[in-house]
Amino acid sequence: MSEDIFSFKQSFDGYLFERIKKLNIILDIQSSLFYSLSNGGKRLRPYFLFLSAQKYTLSMQNIFELGCAVEILHTSSLIHDDLPAIDNSDFRRSMPSSHRRFNEYTAILTGDFGFTLPLKILDEMDLTLDKKTTIMSYFIRATIELFTGETQDVIFEKENKQVSPQDIIQMYECKTGSLFGLCLCLPSIINSESYEYERLYYLGKQFGVFFQIMDDLDDIHLSSEQAGKDTGKDVDKKTLLSQWSEERVINYSSSIYSNLVESFYNMGFVKLSTFISDYGKNIIERVRQG
Amino acid sequence: MSEDIFSFKQSFDGYLFERIKKLNIILDIQSSLFYSLSNGGKRLRPYFLFLSAQKYTLSMQNIFELGCAVEILHTSSLIHDDLPAIDNSDFRRSMPSSHRRFNEYTAILTGDFGFTLPLKILDEMDLTLDKKTTIMSYFIRATIELFTGETQDVIFEKENKQVSPQDIIQMYECKTGSLFGLCLCLPSIINSESYEYERLYYLGKQFGVFFQIMDDLDDIHLSSEQAGKDTGKDVDKKTLLSQWSEERVINYSSSIYSNLVESFYNMGFVKLSTFISDYGKNIIERVRQG
Repeated sequence: MSEDIFSFKQSFDGYLFERIKKLNIILDIQSSLFYSLSNGGKRLRPYFLFLSAQKYTLSMQNIFELGCAVEILHTSSLIHDDLPAIDNSDFRRSMPSSHRRFNEYTAILTGDFGFTLPLKILDEMDLTLDKKTTIMSYFIRATIELFTGETQDVIFEKENKQVSPQDIIQMYECKTGSLFGLCLCLPSIINSESYEYERLYYLGKQFGVFFQIMDDLDDIHLSSEQAGKDTGKDVDKKTLLSQWSEERVINYSSSIYSNLVESFYNMGFVKLSTFISDYGKNIIERVRQG
Repeated sequence: MSEDIFSFKQSFDGYLFERIKKLNIILDIQSSLFYSLSNGGKRLRPYFLFLSAQKYTLSMQNIFELGCAVEILHTSSLIHDDLPAIDNSDFRRSMPSSHRRFNEYTAILTGDFGFTLPLKILDEMDLTLDKKTTIMSYFIRATIELFTGETQDVIFEKENKQVSPQDIIQMYECKTGSLFGLCLCLPSIINSESYEYERLYYLGKQFGVFFQIMDDLDDIHLSSEQAGKDTGKDVDKKTLLSQWSEERVINYSSSIYSNLVESFYNMGFVKLSTFISDYGKNIIERVRQG
């Protein structure tokens, strides 16, 4: 199946909202989760899952179930990240952030639910026990890495830590990379290609670093309207741009990008390689134009 | 093995702190988790697990591993419950609450970690896949019920909802009962006594209602020093005491108590029955004396 990210998002979103309804959670939390999921996310992580699955023979239902789990986790992490005590962001994807639209306790509790609901989705999947437990293992690992990256990021800022470029890259790998790593390796687990799990997880984390650097560059070059969220907030932030020149940062991310395109191609993930190639080309071009 | 709750706590706590160290989490979170776990909790939930396990042949290691998972989850729920946006409690077990001792972002992130770390502990247990997945299922279910009860409680208060006694009892079952239910049924899962899982989970929830009512009564009768936390805060709260007379509430909880003592005895959980019998007798006596 060859589907672009926009048509994928359309069918995925239909599935996602139905799936959440079936979770039967308390209505206040369901509404708030719907709100945060409805404000125009690209579904890049589930799409990565879909692209990675093209190498194997996975049912769309399995792809969608796994995608729902990852997207709920991702969205929940953004809800907590936006909280006044953490990033204090009033906007997310051009809409008021959860605690601004609802209130702080709803945002905290929605995030709490959203860290556990994905495991309920995985638990309810129709898989052999060995696949289910392996998927859960990776999911738990990625969640903890995500929290670790988030904590590092917050501590770097709030406690004004002395950090090295390596500290920041490692934080990017955890905070942004872990979920991409998860998405890339989940299909291989369902196909029991165990020799690929770790390699795919690693490459996903590398993509996360590339993605985060592009996001940092957008923050300094785009207006809030263009980006759909508060921008210009990162000027004094501990991003890789606070450590290296913009040129060096772009060159570094370009080399990650080239390596990803080649690695995925060589591993037989042709559609994934093509997508990253196009995605990266556009975004690097935009960034080079400033 | 016949061990009282105090000597159990001593050996359990030794295990717990070593176990957390082995989780290799980022140090700021480890310190904050240690802090919240060190302030004198009775370990009633892990002790319930231990008592329930006495009917079967469980290794102490399995009891301790499951107990660590439950206690971390429980403590994390208290950390989030104390947050300014939720219960706004400055003290917990006679010590400053997490956000007061550290700061709000540390408290939020510690709770987030603490909702997922228990699953990592379960994931690392040496169990057959069918037992592991069943344990995880119950754990995920109890976590979501805990969040549901917490959300109901917060909404009842903040939005000044009209509630019935049944609403409050159901909230107690979720908020306080689900973890007791979990503790009681986990040993039966390891022993594959599947006909007992649901019954034990249900009875644990009933104990939670009894326990929560006793806590409510303590709140109106004990000083903050005696209780080790802010008391007298519940006067206008939607507890069962806001619905029924104190006499009726005590009678209701006494009937739950008698039923639990008898049910556990009849099911062969003799030590559990004896413990609840003694525990309840003391606490009901204290409460009746006001």
